[in-house]
Amino acid sequence: MRATLIHGPRDVRLEHVPDPRVELPTDAVVRVVAACVCGSDLWPYRGVAPTPEPRRIGHEFVGIVEEVGASVAAVRPGDFVVAPFTISDNTCVHCRNGVQTSCVHGGSWGAVNDDGLFADGGQGERVRVPYADGTLVVAPAVPSDELLPGVLACSDVMGTGHHAARSARVGAGSTVVVVGDGAVGLCAVIAARRLGAERIVAMSRNPARQALATRFGATDLVAERGAEGVAHVLDLLDGVGADSALECVGTKESMQQALDVARPGGLVGFVGVPAGGPEVSVRQMFGTNVGVVGGVAPVRSYIPELLADVWSGAIEPGLVFDLTLPLDEVAQAYAAMDERRAVKVMLRP
Amino acid sequence: MRATLIHGPRDVRLEHVPDPRVELPTDAVVRVVAACVCGSDLWPYRGVAPTPEPRRIGHEFVGIVEEVGASVAAVRPGDFVVAPFTISDNTCVHCRNGVQTSCVHGGSWGAVNDDGLFADGGQGERVRVPYADGTLVVAPAVPSDELLPGVLACSDVMGTGHHAARSARVGAGSTVVVVGDGAVGLCAVIAARRLGAERIVAMSRNPARQALATRFGATDLVAERGAEGVAHVLDLLDGVGADSALECVGTKESMQQALDVARPGGLVGFVGVPAGGPEVSVRQMFGTNVGVVGGVAPVRSYIPELLADVWSGAIEPGLVFDLTLPLDEVAQAYAAMDERRAVKVMLRP
Repeated sequence: MRATLIHGPRDVRLEHVPDPRVELPTDAVVRVVAACVCGSDLWPYRGVAPTPEPRRIGHEFVGIVEEVGASVAAVRPGDFVVAPFTISDNTCVHCRNGVQTSCVHGGSWGAVNDDGLFADGGQGERVRVPYADGTLVVAPAVPSDELLPGVLACSDVMGTGHHAARSARVGAGSTVVVVGDGAVGLCAVIAARRLGAERIVAMSRNPARQALATRFGATDLVAERGAEGVAHVLDLLDGVGADSALECVGTKESMQQALDVARPGGLVGFVGVPAGGPEVSVRQMFGTNVGVVGGVAPVRSYIPELLADVWSGAIEPGLVFDLTLPLDEVAQAYAAMDERRAVKVMLRP
Repeated sequence: MRATLIHGPRDVRLEHVPDPRVELPTDAVVRVVAACVCGSDLWPYRGVAPTPEPRRIGHEFVGIVEEVGASVAAVRPGDFVVAPFTISDNTCVHCRNGVQTSCVHGGSWGAVNDDGLFADGGQGERVRVPYADGTLVVAPAVPSDELLPGVLACSDVMGTGHHAARSARVGAGSTVVVVGDGAVGLCAVIAARRLGAERIVAMSRNPARQALATRFGATDLVAERGAEGVAHVLDLLDGVGADSALECVGTKESMQQALDVARPGGLVGFVGVPAGGPEVSVRQMFGTNVGVVGGVAPVRSYIPELLADVWSGAIEPGLVFDLTLPLDEVAQAYAAMDERRAVKVMLRP
């Protein structure tokens, strides 16, 4: 089969690799129907994270189960499934606590996992899925082409935006500021609205993303950043600040922006993969009682409820995909996201 | 009257100062019945925080109202009152959000406040109290000598320990680790027990403090620190870690200790005044989904419920006071705490 490998900065290639197969009784093999490029994939692409040797890449995909191991019970051949961006057994204590990203048997796509075997990356034609019963979520049916992007968004960005909102305890009547207008930030707007937020300020200076944020439920837009951005947000929120600030970027500046727009006693929900660190001012947190909660999103625990809302049309996170390319053109997909010509690219094998 | 001034490292003196009086209609004057020395008072005492010029000190006291301004309604002369360690109007938006430490009219004892006038320090014979209706909490009666220490503890340490537990969302069945065996850490044990924690691990290597922690409800004691301390805690908690880790010290090491003993998805509730910073590993928080919530405790919002439990005997935070001295001997009180001969010293004018 063919799958994507990253060789180094700005060098991703679709190559022939061995076909995956069921290796363990708990495995499944999934034929990928759609995959995507994540903002975090851009880190090795840009050389921010090193790539010492060529490796498989991609951790967001949906597809159809082709084969399952003898002990797989919840997933059957022919099922359309959503794969979260991490592997988990969904039975260990951390999974039961809703933190599947800390699963004691957990692992990553495109890496050798706890079982000592290689799990394919998501940007390929097929994937060996460890702990198939725990990892995969079965969709009600094969989605229409119209529904497909929204279903794919449940694999990462929608669940990640939701995690930011949940971590910051967004609820009915909340005032929310979303820092970051990438796919995750836009999904965080959806999540905040879905959880009942009354006021949602999206910080964005890109007209297309502003429009999408507004469609998703943002009540206010702030184009400024830094101190000017803080001043504008405070002006909108009666000088008080937000109950919840959702940090969806991962830089020192975005974390500071989130801390600065939260009200005393408020929460920052953070899901941006930290580009550095430590970068949180404990003294500021101490003085303001603004807490910082979040991390790598346990998307697996959120997929059932989010997928149901995508299926019903209640939420439309698929709109974050503004470019679809065949898997053959995966290199162009990376370039489009790197150059910010696309918010999020869907790949079709 | 006489009040305590700090002149510099290891130099506190009881001196003659002007008598306080009602300056504004919202003021009260309180005769101090008991005050205490705070762990944070040791910072200037030890020279960790600078003392550029002599200043009043002390922010924990209880006493009897002697005089009130014309617009004071909730507090009457003769009332026995508890003063939280910050001043607040208890009506502004931040106060209504339960964050009285961020009151828009808030201020500190022993400093010029928002009203442009000086509020006396707590380690003296009398105190001018700004925003008396908002700041003070009236006790049911003048407490007995037996009850007095517990009532005084509501001024700071009991509410601060409670804030750590509340920030880390301690509830029925929680597993809790308390980092720090000072008065605040010991009160955090009381708070965790009071909120229904099932397992409370107190990290302490001091036999007297261990005994007090056990009396307050600690189910386990861990004397080790650092990696050994983490290993011991994880061994006690089935390798999972604690739902809630309460950081009651304020050093880089204690914050790291708390982060390391929390389970994935758990919370660190922090109330130790940060001795430095930033000192939180955002990467660790991201990977483990351990959140950090807390800060300077809005004790004012907690006093009513905590004072009621002290009054009924349900909790005994007064036991943290292991030395009582006359106000004349305030210098000895500081020395006893500095040299760790006392957990907490009560001063009687």
